[in-house]
Parts: sequence; structure tokens; C-alpha cells
Amino acid sequence: MKLIIEKDYETMSQTTANILLGLMSEDHRVNLAITAGNTPKRLYEIMVPQVKGRPYFENVHYYNFDEIPIVGSQGYGITMRNLNDLYFSPANIKKEQLHPLDETNWQTQDARLKEAGGLDLILMGIGEDGHFCGNMPGWTKFGATTYAVDISQAQAAKEALAAEVDGDLRKVPNEFYTMGPKSVMAAKRLVMFANGKKKAAIVKKAFFGAVTEAVPASILQLHPNLTLILDTEAASELADR
Amino acid sequence: MKLIIEKDYETMSQTTANILLGLMSEDHRVNLAITAGNTPKRLYEIMVPQVKGRPYFENVHYYNFDEIPIVGSQGYGITMRNLNDLYFSPANIKKEQLHPLDETNWQTQDARLKEAGGLDLILMGIGEDGHFCGNMPGWTKFGATTYAVDISQAQAAKEALAAEVDGDLRKVPNEFYTMGPKSVMAAKRLVMFANGKKKAAIVKKAFFGAVTEAVPASILQLHPNLTLILDTEAASELADR
Amino acid sequence: MKLIIEKDYETMSQTTANILLGLMSEDHRVNLAITAGNTPKRLYEIMVPQVKGRPYFENVHYYNFDEIPIVGSQGYGITMRNLNDLYFSPANIKKEQLHPLDETNWQTQDARLKEAGGLDLILMGIGEDGHFCGNMPGWTKFGATTYAVDISQAQAAKEALAAEVDGDLRKVPNEFYTMGPKSVMAAKRLVMFANGKKKAAIVKKAFFGAVTEAVPASILQLHPNLTLILDTEAASELADR
Amino acid sequence: MKLIIEKDYETMSQTTANILLGLMSEDHRVNLAITAGNTPKRLYEIMVPQVKGRPYFENVHYYNFDEIPIVGSQGYGITMRNLNDLYFSPANIKKEQLHPLDETNWQTQDARLKEAGGLDLILMGIGEDGHFCGNMPGWTKFGATTYAVDISQAQAAKEALAAEVDGDLRKVPNEFYTMGPKSVMAAKRLVMFANGKKKAAIVKKAFFGAVTEAVPASILQLHPNLTLILDTEAASELADR
Repeated sequence: MKLIIEKDYETMSQTTANILLGLMSEDHRVNLAITAGNTPKRLYEIMVPQVKGRPYFENVHYYNFDEIPIVGSQGYGITMRNLNDLYFSPANIKKEQLHPLDETNWQTQDARLKEAGGLDLILMGIGEDGHFCGNMPGWTKFGATTYAVDISQAQAAKEALAAEVDGDLRKVPNEFYTMGPKSVMAAKRLVMFANGKKKAAIVKKAFFGAVTEAVPASILQLHPNLTLILDTEAASELADR
Repeated sequence: MKLIIEKDYETMSQTTANILLGLMSEDHRVNLAITAGNTPKRLYEIMVPQVKGRPYFENVHYYNFDEIPIVGSQGYGITMRNLNDLYFSPANIKKEQLHPLDETNWQTQDARLKEAGGLDLILMGIGEDGHFCGNMPGWTKFGATTYAVDISQAQAAKEALAAEVDGDLRKVPNEFYTMGPKSVMAAKRLVMFANGKKKAAIVKKAFFGAVTEAVPASILQLHPNLTLILDTEAASELADR
Repeated sequence: MKLIIEKDYETMSQTTANILLGLMSEDHRVNLAITAGNTPKRLYEIMVPQVKGRPYFENVHYYNFDEIPIVGSQGYGITMRNLNDLYFSPANIKKEQLHPLDETNWQTQDARLKEAGGLDLILMGIGEDGHFCGNMPGWTKFGATTYAVDISQAQAAKEALAAEVDGDLRKVPNEFYTMGPKSVMAAKRLVMFANGKKKAAIVKKAFFGAVTEAVPASILQLHPNLTLILDTEAASELADR
Repeated sequence: MKLIIEKDYETMSQTTANILLGLMSEDHRVNLAITAGNTPKRLYEIMVPQVKGRPYFENVHYYNFDEIPIVGSQGYGITMRNLNDLYFSPANIKKEQLHPLDETNWQTQDARLKEAGGLDLILMGIGEDGHFCGNMPGWTKFGATTYAVDISQAQAAKEALAAEVDGDLRKVPNEFYTMGPKSVMAAKRLVMFANGKKKAAIVKKAFFGAVTEAVPASILQLHPNLTLILDTEAASELADR
């Protein structure tokens, strides 16, 4: 694991952008899975003007590593909708470069990725509970490939997701989809980033503590090419290094 | 994981030799960690005449992934002594190509491997108890790099090891050394082989069951380039595939 | 360049088989371009029984790097017909694993290979005139990607090719197709093999002489992962090494 | 070849910095050979504040691909002196990370690089005469590894070099050292950048014309992972693309 601590969210985002843009400019097909959510907001703001209108990035193919369908809605689920708003649409990424994972194709996600040469890089955030992608504590098996998570009986989870769909619980599905630990570990490079005080405890636990399914992200310690990028707040519980 | 089932020990050994010899003939430094023990006996018999006297294999560097020092003895420990007898000595491998892990340098093993570009391939066997390298059930932490295993209080383990040193318990050390799961997972390619009926149950458990520290080898499922080579007996408990 | 000299054709063929079989057993899609002709005859005899009926080699995709269509004939051209006879058919390789280059698709060969992740290995022979694939002295530009070679005015070339189609000059086409030097150099690994006294002079010239379009194969010296496998006869003009 | 055209020198420099910084942040030893001269001035200005004081870049090892000793002077030659001024010194790069090529060790440069795992990336500029590194038209053989260029009889060359050493012809050596085309082609990735109107003609010739020793940089077309970064002026003679 390579640990990078930057002074603030801005610098953390810039450093992450360097890594993505550097890889994207290689002369071969580049397969990326990138994260939605709050952590990458500044990252995508930095990237959009550097990617938009540049034909030399058309070798980059984008995958999402999880998806939460919206009940009663056509088109993208919550993850792809968010990625589209933050990055794909403002950067004018072509449809042919997008490979959405969704309720219709999750069972072939791993086979399709293998056929396409595998993922070159996955960019992820970490949840305060230690989840990564859709791999939640209590539900995650380290040996899982891409799978469906049944939340039909998980009222708390459904309520949390409702916030993403205008607070309307009827739009929350009974299951969502995620690449499992085994699928994530198959990528050539992993980049995990985190910022802010509230991530400090889980960062310490997941990357400097025991590898256990109770903290799903802890498995990522075992990847041979993991870069962990933190701002000083997220790094504040780490021992002097 | 790629699963290869061969009809018998001879074919399994030949297939494993192909993989090693193919990699060794690449035009760059090749770093291998290879296993001692019973499983590789036929493999090394096949390899010795194909390696001996061939200068084009001098790009290959050999590492051992574990070592049990012999108390009161100079020179190699049990693992290197065994590797030397089976392969290094009959194949006339030069001293400069050997990089023994031992009680004097285990603390720098991971740093030295990283500096040398990492391991290209680790060849391992599996124990009936699910151990790989020196990672024993009950002692193993998935997050461990190269470490010392304290067996001073483990009478059963000491007695088992005594068999390797003429049954003399006084030659058995209080600790031995092994690359941990994190160090093993950092290799570019893993090859695990197993033969015989008595390995059938653990093969099923370790590679088709849950990933758990209780079965140390189960972590290897998560490596992106694992080849598992079995004879039909070792594969006999696997579902039809 | 890694130079491997074996004592005879049999050993040269076995060593080449090791390299191919070792790569083919990796746990990812493997893209191979392999040669037709006389040099690989023993190689394919060795490989057929090791590949036939083994589902674990279905990850291997086969490409041909040149093709000579047969005028007035449906189906494969000379190269694929030969590869089919020597290897694909006796080894029961599935249609889905074959990606023929021919007169209908040579213009997209490079793009299709790039999309598929590139070639992992190209196995080639060398002609006594220094040609490799269909890159002939006098016609070859080092900068060429996959291209058509116009032989409509080259009576000698046409007569040479007639031998491949029952001596019938009317079956010889006006152009054939080949991956150019630039396309070949893009592969991750190159293996060139040669046997027999009559190859000794060109081996010395191409791999130990000047890099020049007059000896097309000389460009292969500049590939970062080239393995050259010779029998002692083909190596007989090389200085003591 | 991946072609990147940026609107100006500033953007070209930023894009190049992204590529270097992205690679440097991987979790393994990274071997770079980087260029001295005018083209990289802005690049190093951008990089210095992003590299200085960041321990997470200590995995990066720096090599120079050519050197011109200064007669009668101790210490660095012209290339390393320039790199030191522009980058190593202001970025506080540690001595242990620097691996100077010079008159004492050029004969072992290729062997040392191979032992160290090879170069991950070479950053180069191009001369108006088509030279790259110290590979000059009229002197360069495509098959050359690291070599000494004898300029004892080349008065024009000596006078050109005098400008680098206070105009003092007595400080100009009789030979300088450079990695040859074969050594450069062995790197995993090549990045070539050029800016300004005066580079437009040679850029077109070297990267879109014939591969010939008369234009040494033309060989780089055959590298499987070459990124060519231009500003609009250097790209001004290229056909619409």
C-alpha cells in the first residue's frame, strides 16, 4: 500500500486527478471503474475541463462498480445518474465509452470485464462503517464476485437510500448490485481516497487494523497496487509516519 | 482462478513445469519463490535436466517463502536444504541466483523483494489443514507480511518438525519464518498445486468455500492471477465442472 | 533479446511448447498469433495432445498474422488452412477462439487487436531472405501496420506461392495480407524460432547485424521481450557465446 | 502511438506532469529517465512543488539517458548538472534515488537497468535534426545499446556543445554517452514532447514519415506505448486529425 497524505481536500483531489489522467493517456484501451458520491465531487470538477473535447481520451472505458435501481423509473439507477451528473455528461463522454452495470446484466459483469482485459484501475471511497462499493459490513463475503444485495428486509438501509431518490421510499428497490471483494481485487490498480475528520477512525481501522469481513474495506490491504490518498483530517488518527 | 485438472501426478507435474519454464525463458529478470516438500518432487525431476547447463536461465532468481532454522547447525535451514537437494544442487543453480530467507534477514524480506521488482511467481502446495507457506490455521492473520512464528509453546508443531531433522527435537527451533498472506498476495502470479486423495477435502474447502483465516489458503482465491493445478484425486470432491 | 540454443529440432520444439503452454495457462484472456509453415510442425505435434480436450485453454484466442487467399476458393486462405491442418483441427480448437485475418478484414486488424487488449505473444519463423510474417525484403517499410502486398507484377513470388496451391498459378492472388513491423512490435512478447543449417546465415545477419529494411526481421532486435530459439545448426554461424 | 495536442506550452507541460506524477504514485519501484534541456523547463517548475517534501515519492529512481562530461571538472556532466538545477535540487530528491550515467559506467548501463527491472518511462524531447537522447543523424544505428559517441573530429558538434560550458571549447570532451535506440525501446513507456513552430517540420517527419536512421527519432514510432505530446505550434504541419 502506498500512503499519500495531502494537506486538504483540494490537493487530495488534484493528486487523484493526476493518477487518473496519467493512466488515461496511455496508448491502449483503459478500463476504469470510478466512484459516485461526495468524495469525488472536486475531483470531477478538476477533470471535466481536462477531458471534455479531447479525442485522445476516447480509449477510456468507464464502468460502475455498483448500482441501485430506481423503482418505477426508466434509465440509469442512482449510481450512474450521479456519475452522469458529475462527470460523464459535463465531460461529454460518448455513450460507447460507458458500460453500465445494472439489474439486467450484473450476472455477466465479471465475465464481460475479463473479456475486455480487466479493469486497469478502480477508484473508490470508504464509508464510515467500512463499506466499499456496495460491500456492507454484515453482508459481505470476501469471496464474493459481483452479486445482488437483498435489502427487502433491511428497513434502515432502505431509508438511507430513500434520501437519494427524493425521500420517496417507494422508489427504493429490494435489491441492489455490487462488485464483490473478489471482483475488486482482480483490478490491476486500486485507488482509495478519503477526506475529513469523520473518516479518520475507519481509515485507521480498515488500512492499519485487522483484515476482517466486519470491516469490508480491510481486504484491500492485500491488493499489490493500492494507493490510499487522504487529507490530513482523514489521516489524523494514524500514528506518526 | 484458473482450475487445471490433470489425470495424474505425472501430468500435473509436467503442466506445472511448463508454466515455470515458460516464464523463466522471458527476456528479463524473473523472481521465483518455489516450494519444498513432497508435492514438487516429480516437478523438480522434470526440471533439472531442462535447466542444468543452460545459461539462458541465469536471469532467474530464486527465493524461499519460509524457513525453519536447524538449531546448532550452520548453513541452510530445513526449507533451503530441501530445495537444494531436490533442485538447486542437481540443476547447478549459481549462488548468485539464490536469495535465502532465514533468521538473519526475514525482517527485510518484503523490502528486498520490492526493491528487486517483486516476485513474478510463487509456487505453493497446500497442507491438509489449509496452511500455505508457513501460514498455519490458528496463527495466521491475513494482514501479515513476512513474520516469525513462535512455536516455543507448541509441542505438536515441534514434534512434527522434528521428523525433518532426524527426529531430534533439540534441533527444532523456537520460531520459524514465513512470508505472510499480504506478502504472498503481492506476487504477480500464484500457482498452487496438489495431488492425492488426502488433499481433496481441503482443496474444496480452501478454493470453493469461505475466505477465512481458519483456512489460510482460502485468501488465495482473491489473487487476480491464481492457477490451481490438481490431479483427479485431489479434485475428486469438486462438483462436476 | 534472450538467446536459447537447443541441441536439436526436437528440443527446440519442446522449449517453444513450454513457452506457449505456460502463457496459455494464465488466468486471463490470452491472445496469440502463431505461425504456419514447416518450422512449427513438431511444435504442434507436441501441443495437440496437451491442448485437445482441455477446457482450461478456452481463454486462448488465436490470430494469424498473414494470409494468402486462394483465388476461386471459399473458406480459409493458405495460412489458416495450414494452421487448421497442423493444429486447430486436431486440437479441437473452438471456432469462437479463432480470429482469422483475411481479405475482408485486414484493414481493421490493428484496431480489433487493440480493442481485444493486444497480442500477448507472436510466434514467428524467419525466411532465408530475412522475411518475417509477410514482410519481404524490398517491399517492407518498418513503419507499416497491417497491409496488403501487391504481387500482381511479381512473377517469381507468384510462382513460389503456386507450390502451396497444387502448383496452380491461377489460384495465386494478386495481393496478400500481413501484419507490418509496427503491428508486430506492439505485441507484449515475441518468440522467433529457427532450425537447420540453411537458416544459420540469416539468423546471424538478422539478429546480430545491422537493423535495416533490407533484412526485415532485423527490426525485431528492438523489441523489449524477444526470445530467439535455435537448434545448434541454425546457431552455427554465431560467434562463441 | 497516442497523439496529444494541447493548446500551448503551459497545457502541454501540465499534461506531461500528470503522466509522470500518476506513474510515480504507484506502489512499486518506479524507474524514470528524464530529459534535460529547454522543453522540460515549465514541466519541472510544475513538478517541484508537488514532489518536494513528499516522502511518498521516494520509490522513484531517476536515470539520465545521456551525459556529456565536462573536461577538467569534477562531479556531474552537462546533463546531470542541468537536471540537478531544474529538478533534483529544488525538489530535494535524495542522492539514493539518483543513478547517474557517466564516463565511468556507461558500459554497464543496460545491465544495471535490466537488473533494476527496466525503465518504466523515458521522457524525451526531439531535436530539429531528428535526434533523441544523444542519437544524432549520421551517427546513429538503430541496433545500438548504450554507447560512446566519438566527436573528436566533429568540430561543429564540439562548438555547439561549448555553449553549454561557458563557451569554453577546452571543456568539451572527445566523446559523450547515450542510451541507443535499442536501450530506449526496452522501456515500458515512452513519452516524447515538443513545442513551438520550429519543431513542427521534424515532428511530422519523425512520427508521420518513414522509419529511417537518417531521422533517429522515427524508430520510436515502433514502440508499443508511445505518447507524443505537442502544443498546437509543434503540431501545425500535421494533416487535419
